[in-house]
Formats: sequence, structure tokens, C-alpha cells
Amino acid sequence: MKISIIGVGLIGGSIGLALRNQNNKFFKNKKITIVGVGRKPLRLALAQRLGAIDKFTTSIKDGVKDADIIFIATPVKTIPRIFEEVILYCKTSAIITDVGSVKVEVLKKIKQSLAAHLKKSSTSAGKGPFFVSSHPIAGGEKTSVVYAKPDLFKNAVTVITPLNKKTPRQVIDTIKKLWLAIGSKVYIMSPEHHDDILARTSHLPHIVAYALVNSLKIPTDKNYTGPGWRDTTRIASSDPDMWAEIINLNKNAVLKALKKLKSNIAQIEKSLSDEKSLSKIFSKSKNTRDSIHSTP
Amino acid sequence: MKISIIGVGLIGGSIGLALRNQNNKFFKNKKITIVGVGRKPLRLALAQRLGAIDKFTTSIKDGVKDADIIFIATPVKTIPRIFEEVILYCKTSAIITDVGSVKVEVLKKIKQSLAAHLKKSSTSAGKGPFFVSSHPIAGGEKTSVVYAKPDLFKNAVTVITPLNKKTPRQVIDTIKKLWLAIGSKVYIMSPEHHDDILARTSHLPHIVAYALVNSLKIPTDKNYTGPGWRDTTRIASSDPDMWAEIINLNKNAVLKALKKLKSNIAQIEKSLSDEKSLSKIFSKSKNTRDSIHSTP
Repeated sequence: MKISIIGVGLIGGSIGLALRNQNNKFFKNKKITIVGVGRKPLRLALAQRLGAIDKFTTSIKDGVKDADIIFIATPVKTIPRIFEEVILYCKTSAIITDVGSVKVEVLKKIKQSLAAHLKKSSTSAGKGPFFVSSHPIAGGEKTSVVYAKPDLFKNAVTVITPLNKKTPRQVIDTIKKLWLAIGSKVYIMSPEHHDDILARTSHLPHIVAYALVNSLKIPTDKNYTGPGWRDTTRIASSDPDMWAEIINLNKNAVLKALKKLKSNIAQIEKSLSDEKSLSKIFSKSKNTRDSIHSTP
Repeated sequence: MKISIIGVGLIGGSIGLALRNQNNKFFKNKKITIVGVGRKPLRLALAQRLGAIDKFTTSIKDGVKDADIIFIATPVKTIPRIFEEVILYCKTSAIITDVGSVKVEVLKKIKQSLAAHLKKSSTSAGKGPFFVSSHPIAGGEKTSVVYAKPDLFKNAVTVITPLNKKTPRQVIDTIKKLWLAIGSKVYIMSPEHHDDILARTSHLPHIVAYALVNSLKIPTDKNYTGPGWRDTTRIASSDPDMWAEIINLNKNAVLKALKKLKSNIAQIEKSLSDEKSLSKIFSKSKNTRDSIHSTP
């Protein structure tokens, strides 16, 4: 069984490491080969050295031609373009997935490319290549393969968003089992639902972290940031281009989330002179958070 | 040498543990006794069991009467009231400090109480008891002594804010040396400057964390919060009453900080359709944060 990972960074690299560590739960003792595909040979050689991939190539064509499963783990905006190239060269039985943080805009393009390709290649109905989208909700503010780890997806949640109702059940199941095998929980939902939720749980926290850091007076405030500030702003150290892409691509859902956030901030501001009201707002928030992440 | 700690929670308890661990840098081999003062005997017994204090009492009078140094480590709103009681019973040579997160409002009251007390007791000029305010910028979302640790102040910053120009240099130096001895860096500044800075570096992050959590759709979003959300909202698990007190007491500085934050959020919102502008805003933020907390 041959697996291609296009884009061997934190996520792609961790997928490679995790696949080796899953004790053949998924592959049932079939030998697997993991091929890394990327633009920079030095980075790919590093991924190989770290054990995330078996071999590598800078050619998408060479990297995907015999692959059974193909991960597109590149920046979200590049996914549709890479997908277009992948379907030109992969096997008709191949299953392609991505790991992008935004679905609606990306899947719109992929749906078009796939339909055009299947029509042109006059493949009979129900034949592939197949695509089903994934989003492992895991990561960190560092994006290099240097920070990749085999347990990145352990106890994380992966959202699977099928392209449409025509996606064969077996294709969805294969990708689902793969994420389960590397320790992830899996939920299946529509692209719209995914983008709506992630705007609140991921894109909004990034915006807030960036805005918080830019609220400091520099250099005056530099010495006075404690552990609270450090954690609240950790993700402001994330890749700015990557997050500009994600937030821009999901702007409609992000706008809705921002509206809610601004109203919550306004409510706190209005209550600044009223300790009891403040405490009530904060209590509600604490209860919700404790119910999601209870620390011992 | 006898030290009293009034309020033996996370901060008070960690001061006790840290004082035992400072290898007599501060006390120069003098024997020290640490007395814990609080309302709940069970909690004080726990603090004693954990080694944070040598003995305890629920009476402020008994707890401070022979003390050379007195820490008031209770919720910020209670500090002035406790201070009033402490000065009735402590020695005239005693040095009192607090660890509160807000200074202007608290020190206004303390200044009045101290002046009234010194006038009434017709102590000669330059005599104590003495007060100098401290704020160790350290802590966590858990406030119990159970989470206290001897290295909580290691590499943390403690801000010392003298009451006024009449505070003897030696009093400030004693408290400064004490914080240095338990591993903290020390900066001295005015109460106004302290409150202005902390509004941006501490109070604002708390407001934002509380507002972020309240922006979720519950229960829909519960399963989709990754490590970014978890860290950004950690401090929303803090004690809501404590933070309502702090933010309410520092409302003027907090209002100013909120204005800046809202303008930063508005700038991001205005740029949602413009990936390049977003990336520029995020880059500025990342550069600032990386310059403050560079993680390897």
C-alpha cells in the first residue's frame, strides 16, 4: 500500500510518523510505503531523516502515480490547484483527502475540477479517483516538520466533510478508519457546518490573539506579560500568511463569529462598574470552559 | 525573624514555599517562622501540611503581633480592610506588603488608613508600621494552596509600587530583596503606571478569554476546540469573583485598553477580504509576540 503526503510540514509530517506508529491497525500487516512530495528537497530530506516518509520527490506526478491514498497537506489556498494536478496522474482507484482548515470555498473548486475531470476522462459512473475532505483539529504555532510528532492526532478530533452525496460510503469509511487508526476521534458533517463551527473555535481565537498582542504598548509593556498573557497569545506566533489565508477564505462565517464576540465584549464593557454582573458573565464562561477542558 | 502570610492560597502558599527554598539568601541564616492567617482552619492545616507555613491562626491579631514582615495575599478588594486591622496589632517596625493586581484604588484607601493610624497613635515621624505594595506577575487559573509551588516566582516579574515618597528607601529595599531572593525580577513604578500596564497585559486577556468562551454555540461547538482554543481560553477558568473584583477596581485603565483592542479587532474585520492586509497585521503581532516569548 502506497501513501502520498503532499506537503510534509507539521501536519503532513505528523501523519507520516503516526501512520508508522499505528501498529497496522489500519493496514493489517500490509507493507506500506510513504512518499513525501514537496518543493524543497532539503526539507523533504529532513522529513525522511526524521522518519516521517520513506522517500520523496518534488514531482507531484511521480509522487502520486501509484498511490492508494493521497494526503494534500499544503496551505489551504493551494489545495484546489494541487488537487487539479493530482487527479491528472493518480490511479482511478486512488482516494484523495486534504487537511485544510476551511471547507466551503475549497470544496467548491474541487467539486468543479473533479466533475470536469471525470467527464473529460469519460470514466464510468462510480469510478474514481475519489475525494473526501478531512480536517484534523490539531497543530501548534510552529509549522515545520521539525515539530511533527506521531501522537499529534491522539485524542484530537478530525472532521470529515464529504464532497457530496455521491461519494461512495466505502471511500468515507477508508479515510475515517485511517484517522481512527492514528488515534483521532472522527465526526462527519457538511462543509458549511464545519466552517461555521471552526470560525468560532479556531479562527476567532486567532484573530483575538493577534489583536491582543497589537494592543500592547511597546516597549513599555514587554516585561509585564505573565503566564496568562503568554497562553492567551500563543497562537499569535502562528504563521501570519497561513492564517491570513484561512481567515480570508472563511470570511463570511468569521464575520458572524466576530459579531457575537463584539457583543460579548460590549456586554463586559457595559458591566465594568457592576461587579456582580461581571462576575455572572465570567461565571458562565468559566462553567462552559471547565465543561470542555477540565484540568485536574 | 517572623513572617506572616494573610491568605494562604496559590500566591500566599507559594510565597511560603519559596521563602523556605531560598537558601537563606535573604535571611542570612536567621531562623524564620512563617505564620499563616486565614478564615478556614482546614485550609490552613492543609497549607501547613504542604510545608507552606509553620503554624497558623484564624486571628489577624495573633498572626501579626510579632511579625517582622507581613504579606496580605487575600482578594484585592479585601486588602484595605485587612490592612486597617493589621496596623492595629503589628509592631511599629513591621513592614507590610500585599500582592494585589490593582494598585490605584487600593493604595488610595491604604494611604488614608495609614495616615489616620499614624496620627492617632502619634508615632514620631519616620516610624512605622511601614507599607510598600507588591504585585508578583505570576499565578494560574487555580487559586488554591494545593497548586502552590516554590518556584512560582522564579523568573517572574514583581512590580513594587511605593505608597508615596515618604516610604523609607530601606523599606522598599527589604521587600525588593525578598522578592529577588525567591527568584523574581523586580521593577519599581507608580501605582498609576502599574494599573495602566496591567490593564493591557493581564486584565484585557482575561476579558477576551471570557468573551471568547461565551462566543461558542453550546453544545454544538464543544467537540471542536483544539489546542489553540484551549490555550487562548485557559484563564477563562479563573475565579470569576476574583477577576470581577480586579477588573471592576481597575475599570478606567481597562476601558482605555478595551478601546485599543476594539480598534484592533475592527481593523482586522475591515481587512477580512484583503489577505495581504490581514497578513501584515498578523505579522506585526507575531513579531511582537516572538520578541516577548520566543519558544524554541
